[in-house]
Amino acid sequence: MKIIVDAFGGDNAPLEVMKGCRMAVDEYGCEIILSGDSHELYQLSGMYSIPLDGITVSDAKGEIPMDAKPTELLSKYKGCSLENAFQQLAAGNGDALVTAGSTGAALTGGTLIVRRIKGVRRPCIATLLPFTEKGTLLLDCGANAECRPDMLCQFGVMGSVYMQQLMGVETPRVGLVNIGTEESKGTDLQREAYALLKAAPVEFIGNIESRDIPLGACEVAVADGFTGNVVLKLVEGMANFFSAQFKQIMLKNTLTSLCALTMKGGMVELKNKLDSSHYGGAPLLGLRKPVIKAHGNADALAIKNAVRQAISCCEKDMVGQIEQSLAQMGAAEEE
Amino acid sequence: MKIIVDAFGGDNAPLEVMKGCRMAVDEYGCEIILSGDSHELYQLSGMYSIPLDGITVSDAKGEIPMDAKPTELLSKYKGCSLENAFQQLAAGNGDALVTAGSTGAALTGGTLIVRRIKGVRRPCIATLLPFTEKGTLLLDCGANAECRPDMLCQFGVMGSVYMQQLMGVETPRVGLVNIGTEESKGTDLQREAYALLKAAPVEFIGNIESRDIPLGACEVAVADGFTGNVVLKLVEGMANFFSAQFKQIMLKNTLTSLCALTMKGGMVELKNKLDSSHYGGAPLLGLRKPVIKAHGNADALAIKNAVRQAISCCEKDMVGQIEQSLAQMGAAEEE
Repeated sequence: MKIIVDAFGGDNAPLEVMKGCRMAVDEYGCEIILSGDSHELYQLSGMYSIPLDGITVSDAKGEIPMDAKPTELLSKYKGCSLENAFQQLAAGNGDALVTAGSTGAALTGGTLIVRRIKGVRRPCIATLLPFTEKGTLLLDCGANAECRPDMLCQFGVMGSVYMQQLMGVETPRVGLVNIGTEESKGTDLQREAYALLKAAPVEFIGNIESRDIPLGACEVAVADGFTGNVVLKLVEGMANFFSAQFKQIMLKNTLTSLCALTMKGGMVELKNKLDSSHYGGAPLLGLRKPVIKAHGNADALAIKNAVRQAISCCEKDMVGQIEQSLAQMGAAEEE
Repeated sequence: MKIIVDAFGGDNAPLEVMKGCRMAVDEYGCEIILSGDSHELYQLSGMYSIPLDGITVSDAKGEIPMDAKPTELLSKYKGCSLENAFQQLAAGNGDALVTAGSTGAALTGGTLIVRRIKGVRRPCIATLLPFTEKGTLLLDCGANAECRPDMLCQFGVMGSVYMQQLMGVETPRVGLVNIGTEESKGTDLQREAYALLKAAPVEFIGNIESRDIPLGACEVAVADGFTGNVVLKLVEGMANFFSAQFKQIMLKNTLTSLCALTMKGGMVELKNKLDSSHYGGAPLLGLRKPVIKAHGNADALAIKNAVRQAISCCEKDMVGQIEQSLAQMGAAEEE
């Protein structure tokens, strides 16, 4: 198994990325193709004594900034670490790709270099929300601010395959994020997507309200990219809010500070549960090869886990399974 | 000051509603018109020894169920406690209205019986999110699943007036809920609303991401009713999630349970801070008279606080101020 990693993507690149790759090779026995400036990478390897066995460097110059226009990946930043990584993937030199760089650029590279699975309207970004043991996959998290109903339906199918294959959920419950549970709720987009999802080869449980997402009401939460992005970022904001509030309560005075020590284990457990670095990155679904977008502030551990996730996608033939499910749906539609 | 209260709206009506009205009369010296079945209300007053001085009963038969079609307020449920309350308000027999009943029905009554302020495209539901001291007013919270840009702009203006007049925020910062801070982010709706808000007589600070709402990034968070409803319910869901998680951490074993006692005060404070019954109900903005929608599970305290809020809306001439601001905006547009 060869995983291509964008060495210069993310806030902590390239050092943490390289460290994470080292950990992944040691732990999973995979091969890594590290895309980026070879001179800088070899220097880093020497400076920090990070052995490169199992890691091949694919030389690429420069990197795409987080605030660059995504499409500039193919013009102004052609040949950069991320563009080269996608070219390697498209050429079949590796099995999957991991980057902690710009989400927009990764989507551009995925769509235009690696290309979509036949029949997929638009690729999307999926994020696993770790409220329950297996989690809830939220998609789309922002790749498509505007969606058509058939795109939402495909998100449901792709998300269902991911939860089945990657997370071992036998029959993932697919819910449509809406402002009420009745079939008539929402806008035309939700009403039409509802009808399509009802006929799709997934366990569609109907509309779910955002308040029920943290309760684990479904394993796949389908939304347009605008709504999904708002949900994802609000989950993050609320976690920060409560974390600050509880810290304040615990450190109110000497007595509470002492007493808080007894709860440290539980707090760390909760923090880890909610920490994205422990459960990998966000898969871009709908592409011909697995692409994992690690968090922008990914450290070595997060990169290692994103590589593990990429390996799982390959081992479980996620792309093939999505292809099959969509074909099945297409057949059902034609019947 | 006379506040009209729907005696039969909400899960705990009519007893808690009556108790709340009693508390409000005693505490604020206002008059209450209680709309509902007079026979039942007088009986209740006797049975629970709730004196009715300061409270007038306006007889009405029946109530509109929570799952009824909102427009049925004017047909099938004409003459019910809520419809009668709106008729009393429209006739000028009271200054404002409070109900814990169906939001949809309240909007219907507000729009069709009390009517909109001149120039208001659509009334909306606003909710005060209590993350910071003065809170953040989120609007629309679900009255209009689909919005046009000019509606969003009006929400910003009306929200700004509310926070100024009711919450004493001198210059409320108005943010547009979006999936990025750049002006180009979101869909056409957000981009066009952005341009309108920039020219509106409010302190528009641009786009805000949902993750920044709990940090108090703005005092007025503008969204279409779909997005606002998703935000509102997710805030609720996340609060429930964290409350359950922390309970689990605190009650892990005997030692943590004992230690948790030292934090009880802080936890209760946080709970109260987030408890809607302490800060009243959701104002419907854009109507010719103040209408406050209390939470469906409102108890006496929540009703009392909703009455206090209704009184404030009257005292601060919220409706007149909104009218003025909209007129100012209209004038600016014509220039």
